[in-house]
Amino acid sequence: MAPTIDDIRDAADRLRDVAVRTPLLESSLVNERVGGRLLLKAEPLQRTGSFKFRGAYNRISRLSPEQRRRGVVAYSSGNHAQGVAYAAKLLGAPAVIVMPADAPEIKIANTRAYGAEVVTYDRNGEDREAIGRRIRDERGSTLVPPYDDPHIIAGQGTVGLELAEQLDAAKAKADVVLCCCGGGGLIAGVSTALRATLPGLEIFSVEPEGFDDTARSLAAGERLANDPEARSFCDALLAPKPGELTFSINRETLAGGFAVTEAEVADAMRVAFRDYKLVAEPGGAVALAAALAGKVDLAGRTVAAVVSGGNVDPALMAKVLAGD
Amino acid sequence: MAPTIDDIRDAADRLRDVAVRTPLLESSLVNERVGGRLLLKAEPLQRTGSFKFRGAYNRISRLSPEQRRRGVVAYSSGNHAQGVAYAAKLLGAPAVIVMPADAPEIKIANTRAYGAEVVTYDRNGEDREAIGRRIRDERGSTLVPPYDDPHIIAGQGTVGLELAEQLDAAKAKADVVLCCCGGGGLIAGVSTALRATLPGLEIFSVEPEGFDDTARSLAAGERLANDPEARSFCDALLAPKPGELTFSINRETLAGGFAVTEAEVADAMRVAFRDYKLVAEPGGAVALAAALAGKVDLAGRTVAAVVSGGNVDPALMAKVLAGD
Repeated sequence: MAPTIDDIRDAADRLRDVAVRTPLLESSLVNERVGGRLLLKAEPLQRTGSFKFRGAYNRISRLSPEQRRRGVVAYSSGNHAQGVAYAAKLLGAPAVIVMPADAPEIKIANTRAYGAEVVTYDRNGEDREAIGRRIRDERGSTLVPPYDDPHIIAGQGTVGLELAEQLDAAKAKADVVLCCCGGGGLIAGVSTALRATLPGLEIFSVEPEGFDDTARSLAAGERLANDPEARSFCDALLAPKPGELTFSINRETLAGGFAVTEAEVADAMRVAFRDYKLVAEPGGAVALAAALAGKVDLAGRTVAAVVSGGNVDPALMAKVLAGD
Repeated sequence: MAPTIDDIRDAADRLRDVAVRTPLLESSLVNERVGGRLLLKAEPLQRTGSFKFRGAYNRISRLSPEQRRRGVVAYSSGNHAQGVAYAAKLLGAPAVIVMPADAPEIKIANTRAYGAEVVTYDRNGEDREAIGRRIRDERGSTLVPPYDDPHIIAGQGTVGLELAEQLDAAKAKADVVLCCCGGGGLIAGVSTALRATLPGLEIFSVEPEGFDDTARSLAAGERLANDPEARSFCDALLAPKPGELTFSINRETLAGGFAVTEAEVADAMRVAFRDYKLVAEPGGAVALAAALAGKVDLAGRTVAAVVSGGNVDPALMAKVLAGD
């Protein structure tokens, strides 16, 4: 079930001229401050503002004409929603998105703007998976899962494929790659791509404090859940526990996992803004936060961090910037 | 004296692997709202956060070893300062930068961080050109002018060269290009490059209200100055009147010029943030502001806007975002 490097290369072929080949950003000022070389894979510049478009497009592109006609359904805290909505639109499939009622306003508005129908639910009371399944059964549509699916993982893996090529073009031999982790789809794909193309580098997951289920699961050797009472402003990374398929990959490919505080994430958002001119949402900034907070040694080394998305409400960003 | 397309191609050769080939950004949501295709050339992602690095590097790279040893001096409201400071550092030349005391704090701090010596002056009382000349005479250093120099203009012109190639790669046949204008160096280089590579498209300058000297000069057929009492938060675009060399080029290459209000600029900064995930400073956002404010017809057409820089203080950006 786990995608191979060939599956990721096939996804890259499908995404060519459809997805953005996002740039690898570097700041000489930050490099000087940290005493090493820090490179950012800038997925906020991806279509729909996050990497999620890649997996969604790869998945939906494999549906038959009849399946596309019946449409797709997805449940998401926001970025997967926008990715599915826009990919479905490009591929001619109607989309229904099940979203938490307290998701950032910009994510709900954009999902509608991409042409999807939005159904909201209470994040702390209702079961989004059950709602998604009910809509699927009623309409005969196809569920596009957020991470536990080989085509989704292969699509996200194209981030890693590009990263390997861009590191080479930048004459950068990376020692470490840091990548955010919610359900684990992005890092499963990225680490699969990097193990095949750049063997020898260490890959770490980064999660928000209170949602470090993957870090703890890696240490324990089995899937552990987060405390259901935990809260975080990293709304893109609130999956309750590692995915089954994603964890079966990540336990083989990752060197370990880190957790970062909200203060560290806010600082990373300010650095992305000031030194890279890039808008990063909280969940998108955790890997950069881990690098800046010294979770790995940067001195004399080369570290790449995936910045996964930039869909942050202007009001929240204004607060973060004012807190500088 | 005016640079040719060959001079711009030569600058591009020197800048290869040194400057960033900045991406051309597009948003399907914005395209849908405006009913056309709007593409942004994202120079905030350039080294030092603006296009200014290109011209500075091209200029300083032509100094002899003895000239480099004696160093360079420049006067600048901020972005040229950072561009010169970093280019000089890469090329082994000490740099002195004459900056207005009220320039954004981030620009002064970064200029120092790039290794330059900063001398401040009062923007409304002292003559920065005289200060720059005095330092040059005292130290035997070379003055790097902000715009009225063929090597500076040729370096900035590489933005236009890349834009032409990227429009072609995006299968976009542009009808109009909008570009900000302070002293006119960027648009002189860009328009020279575009006239040689994409003849037929219309190129317009965009300036802040109160500083539309180029628009008025184009209409009058002679160089006119701005009211010395005028003020604007577009700190990168406050040149008193068009440059002599730049205007001699721009009067041949431009179809006309527009002025935008501060409210239109603030709106463009929010759109850059929300829809393109790009940090744009006020002066960097004027071309996007002109497009969004309907200065040119977008319906069914393709318009490219140069976003020239992203060096905005976080506190100012917080205010702009909160004003949404």
